[in-house]
Amino acid sequence: MTEILPSYVRDAWWTPDASAAASAAEVRDASTGDVVARVSTEGLDLAAVLEHARTVGQRSLGELTFHQRAVLLKQMALVLTERKAELYELSARTGATKRDSWIDIDGGIGVLFTYSSKGRRELPNGKVVIDGPVEPLSKDGSFIGRHVSTRLPGVAVQINAFNFPVWGSLEKFAPAFLAGMPTVVKPATPTGYLAEAFVRILVESGLLPAGSLQLVSGGIPGLFDHLRLGDLVGFTGSASTAERLRSHESVQTGGVRFTSETDSINASVLGTDAVPGTPEFDAYIAQLVLEMTSKAGQKCTAIRRAIVPEASVDAVIDAVRDRLAAKVVLGDPRAEGVTMGPLASLAQRDEVLRQVARLQGAGGEVVVGSTERPEVVRADGSTGDAGDGAFVSPVLLKFTDATAEAVHDVEAFGPVASVIGYGSLDQAVDLVARGGGSLVTSVATHDPDVAVALASGIAAMNGRLLFLDRDDAKTSTGHGSPVPHLVHGGPGRAGGGEELGGMRSVMHHMQRTAVQGSPAMLTALTGVWHSGAAARPYAESGDVHPFRKSLAELRIGDQVASPSRTVTLEDIETFANFTGDTFYAHMDEAAAAANPFFPGRVAHGYLLVSWAAGLFVDAAPGPVLANSGLENLRFITPVSPGDEIRVELTAKQITPRETDEYGEVRWDAVLRNQDDELVATYDVLTLVAKQQAA
Amino acid sequence: MTEILPSYVRDAWWTPDASAAASAAEVRDASTGDVVARVSTEGLDLAAVLEHARTVGQRSLGELTFHQRAVLLKQMALVLTERKAELYELSARTGATKRDSWIDIDGGIGVLFTYSSKGRRELPNGKVVIDGPVEPLSKDGSFIGRHVSTRLPGVAVQINAFNFPVWGSLEKFAPAFLAGMPTVVKPATPTGYLAEAFVRILVESGLLPAGSLQLVSGGIPGLFDHLRLGDLVGFTGSASTAERLRSHESVQTGGVRFTSETDSINASVLGTDAVPGTPEFDAYIAQLVLEMTSKAGQKCTAIRRAIVPEASVDAVIDAVRDRLAAKVVLGDPRAEGVTMGPLASLAQRDEVLRQVARLQGAGGEVVVGSTERPEVVRADGSTGDAGDGAFVSPVLLKFTDATAEAVHDVEAFGPVASVIGYGSLDQAVDLVARGGGSLVTSVATHDPDVAVALASGIAAMNGRLLFLDRDDAKTSTGHGSPVPHLVHGGPGRAGGGEELGGMRSVMHHMQRTAVQGSPAMLTALTGVWHSGAAARPYAESGDVHPFRKSLAELRIGDQVASPSRTVTLEDIETFANFTGDTFYAHMDEAAAAANPFFPGRVAHGYLLVSWAAGLFVDAAPGPVLANSGLENLRFITPVSPGDEIRVELTAKQITPRETDEYGEVRWDAVLRNQDDELVATYDVLTLVAKQQAA
Repeated sequence: MTEILPSYVRDAWWTPDASAAASAAEVRDASTGDVVARVSTEGLDLAAVLEHARTVGQRSLGELTFHQRAVLLKQMALVLTERKAELYELSARTGATKRDSWIDIDGGIGVLFTYSSKGRRELPNGKVVIDGPVEPLSKDGSFIGRHVSTRLPGVAVQINAFNFPVWGSLEKFAPAFLAGMPTVVKPATPTGYLAEAFVRILVESGLLPAGSLQLVSGGIPGLFDHLRLGDLVGFTGSASTAERLRSHESVQTGGVRFTSETDSINASVLGTDAVPGTPEFDAYIAQLVLEMTSKAGQKCTAIRRAIVPEASVDAVIDAVRDRLAAKVVLGDPRAEGVTMGPLASLAQRDEVLRQVARLQGAGGEVVVGSTERPEVVRADGSTGDAGDGAFVSPVLLKFTDATAEAVHDVEAFGPVASVIGYGSLDQAVDLVARGGGSLVTSVATHDPDVAVALASGIAAMNGRLLFLDRDDAKTSTGHGSPVPHLVHGGPGRAGGGEELGGMRSVMHHMQRTAVQGSPAMLTALTGVWHSGAAARPYAESGDVHPFRKSLAELRIGDQVASPSRTVTLEDIETFANFTGDTFYAHMDEAAAAANPFFPGRVAHGYLLVSWAAGLFVDAAPGPVLANSGLENLRFITPVSPGDEIRVELTAKQITPRETDEYGEVRWDAVLRNQDDELVATYDVLTLVAKQQAA
Repeated sequence: MTEILPSYVRDAWWTPDASAAASAAEVRDASTGDVVARVSTEGLDLAAVLEHARTVGQRSLGELTFHQRAVLLKQMALVLTERKAELYELSARTGATKRDSWIDIDGGIGVLFTYSSKGRRELPNGKVVIDGPVEPLSKDGSFIGRHVSTRLPGVAVQINAFNFPVWGSLEKFAPAFLAGMPTVVKPATPTGYLAEAFVRILVESGLLPAGSLQLVSGGIPGLFDHLRLGDLVGFTGSASTAERLRSHESVQTGGVRFTSETDSINASVLGTDAVPGTPEFDAYIAQLVLEMTSKAGQKCTAIRRAIVPEASVDAVIDAVRDRLAAKVVLGDPRAEGVTMGPLASLAQRDEVLRQVARLQGAGGEVVVGSTERPEVVRADGSTGDAGDGAFVSPVLLKFTDATAEAVHDVEAFGPVASVIGYGSLDQAVDLVARGGGSLVTSVATHDPDVAVALASGIAAMNGRLLFLDRDDAKTSTGHGSPVPHLVHGGPGRAGGGEELGGMRSVMHHMQRTAVQGSPAMLTALTGVWHSGAAARPYAESGDVHPFRKSLAELRIGDQVASPSRTVTLEDIETFANFTGDTFYAHMDEAAAAANPFFPGRVAHGYLLVSWAAGLFVDAAPGPVLANSGLENLRFITPVSPGDEIRVELTAKQITPRETDEYGEVRWDAVLRNQDDELVATYDVLTLVAKQQAA
């Protein structure tokens, strides 16, 4: 008998006792019906799984900085890449074609790469994220506020859908891991063996910190009873299951964060300008057919409603029919030439056919394809009856009544879409909104006015909008593909989750807290120097110039307080002539004085920051390698001939790079004049060596 | 008989028919028990109220930009300031002292000022917010992604607590209004007459766009049945009511956003260093007494748990007793010298005494004050029995068992706090966490190590942390005061809301949507020029230089494409000598070549941006008034002697100021070398006149 799929819990593999064997669920190959695995968690102590994450997992991840975690994500991506052939082989058993598997497996690995790179670029190399600017809360600057985000102290439980066992899991694991939260994965039973395979590769790699990832291969009865404040749940699946889980007391009153991404009745709108014969019409049809057939239409993001100008309804139907005939070969994904596989299981097939019947009963007419059992290509290349395979032909329906409730509400989670016609753009907006909130709507148009009219009406009803035209048709990542850089989730029917995607997904695993206190206290709490906190001017303290210090030696608060330098009219003219910047505010006394901001001719802003560099720099070779940039420069008080300027440059934030011999130092620069008025403020960015040269 | 308090709905005042009079609720003066108002909404068509907001309110607000709405908020603040005496008079009837009223009324007005100013500083003068950077999604740049936020298409319903009828409402109204969402206010019955008064002032001012603000003075039976996707509810009040409302189908499955701020068992921790005799100890005691007595302790943010080193428990109790005796005079707020008023109603008084009894039953010992009926100062200045006034003395309890469940769970919503002792800092962290999530915890310490140890343990359990020490004790806005710049809300028991405060509160009224498309399409959709979209180099198109255009004439995409200029070694030396910036990378060939980033001596970054200005500037007097700043400068490819540079400067974003004769233009600046390699990228900020000078 096929062995029971193991779980990976408390840093060890676990399978139920033999006594559980009888009640274990069987999982079958989507194309052939052969048993692939059996699944049971009978006897698994789920409370202990959660507690392991909260103790061991929190501790081991808490020892790492964001950048260290990000480096591990990249290493995991490389290990999975190396062994992805194993995953592709298993993936075919789920009914996935190579292209489908690419979305799931390479897509999932891509998520790890993206978070690794974004994590190192956009997060500090520390454990706390500063969120937003300093908020001054007292006139004298002695009391300020700022937001910091710290990781949640619990466990991230992910409950996944069957369609993307690798990507769906890594999409949630990567941000949790980066934030420093341990994860418990609960894959969907029909494809859990593929999740088990990628977890096994990660475990074998030795890259996983203790307790950072656990896998529960099977049911999780009562798990929600053990959740508490500081834990979170990320659910992907049906709206009805989401509703049931969300209603649990631990979510309703226990403070457990719950986010869901549910399948939605996504729309694709053909713009009024995108008539047959335009590149946009062709791109629209190609995308619609791809979304109907990719993953056999089993995508939360697939197009369910093709909303097209009334005059183009028939042309769209014909074009879809032609393209399906030309491009789509249904069969066992292991056979040569097959471009569309079966659904994940016979149960899914029956469910899809049931929903198609509901659509037909509500006025939908099947205009392309059929619900008959299809002929398919078998693994050996022969063609014939679908046998025990979960095959369904692509089906396009047409609703003459575009406002029929069913077309906006009934989902057939397979290769099924419906065409409806619209008159005006306002009507198209109304039709999109009838979906009750979607993950994504795409629009094919090359007319900016059409795009703006549609977007302003439908943006708030969607988590994502994709605009398709001749300029991006070739490079578009597609209607159905969430990308790790952008929100994945949507309002209403789509589950209400907008947390997945980009840094906001990392932040979803953290608590944002407003922190109020003195600049010195905020400096201590954030590790970033705050204006108003004590600084150490090197000359006064007998220290060396901060530019003479490596990252190992430099401390935030180390400061250069320069002497003053007088700006003369001759300096301004010299600079103007050298740079070519003879702007009237610098060169024409009358015109400058007529300007609302200047008393007369003033120094160039660029002169001031250039001189400031001359005032703060230590010129000799040393650990400072380069000026890499400058941020948030604001010119405040103009500088007239005869004024003096001086600069204070203070080490504000130090970010060593994990994989380089240097890091970034951000310096707070303040220019003042002889009356101590603020002339300019900015941040100077430099690259500094970790160690003094030998 | 006292008249029934009117509602303001569908842009008109409304009161129920006479037949409702009998069933109307009576509201009484907190100090005297006199009837102040009667309240009923019998016969009010709540569905029509909501629909009015969604149609008329959305339309009128939709015509305004963020800055126009922000200007209106300031005007409203000025009108309320002018007539605040009326509000203070009514506020005294709720039991509020002048100081309490200041928090409510001036605090509420301050929220309007803050959002007005933040709205103009931090939001574009448009209708869509761009959120975060461009995300490149294709290698050739033809397909990019970005997040935009657009207002929700529905109504913002606020359900408020009785304690801050003005501030509590304006705190929610301001961000909704700024976002462009119409508001329906439902005040708490006991103090609804004060909310009516401020709404009346706003209505009379004529500043409210049609449908942007409605007031329901009384019950809202069945209102949730009429809510739908695109609407949101902001609730403030008890955790149990929040739970009941949140469980409504419209929230659970209908996509209605629901956020709650509930009273929580907030803590104030005395640091181990803050022993008696230190300024921190004194500040701690002063704050604790203030939080117990301000608003008679009826604040969601009040201190309920004083968590102090075991050795200091008795000293804290003594100090609180002494300060209460010295500073607090209980009585009718209209009497001279009274510093603490009654609770809002007799029902509240009875409830508080009931909860104190629960605390006593669970091990709490009353160590300061008593639950007896207090002697009070009457309005006429005489002292005597509390009569029909809802007075309660300040009460401090002591729990010997710091882990007793009641002290972390039972809330007496009045002038009541409990002292518990801790041994180690870890134990203090554990005690704070037992509150199950709080709005705020304050910490009195001057030791950064103590602050860091506590913060790292408790940050994730709190919406706000306040650090009190000798440096900020005088300027601190206080433990109990949310400020409009920062998050108000907290995890778990505090309601889970972290939306109120700052721009994130505005964003809570908007839907974030990922938008994907070509740079040209993103430009059209956002009104901001995106790199890769078509630009119009002025010379090629025969246009005038963009610096010759006023805001009225300038269009995004207008561009200066400069000729090239060669950088020589002499130029570098000239610049070094002029500025004093003789950094080795510019002056020392051997040292520069040893640097990992440079081939040899290179030009100063400041030279490059200064020259770029010379290349793109149009020098003659014109609409461009000043260079106000520079952002996001990154140096990419170093420039060696003999290299050429040129610049493309493109108008990226145009932000006219509502109340000035000029606005801000953000220019996209790109420097390239002779091989078309990127040398530097940045944004130049300028101030430009709206019109050409006459």
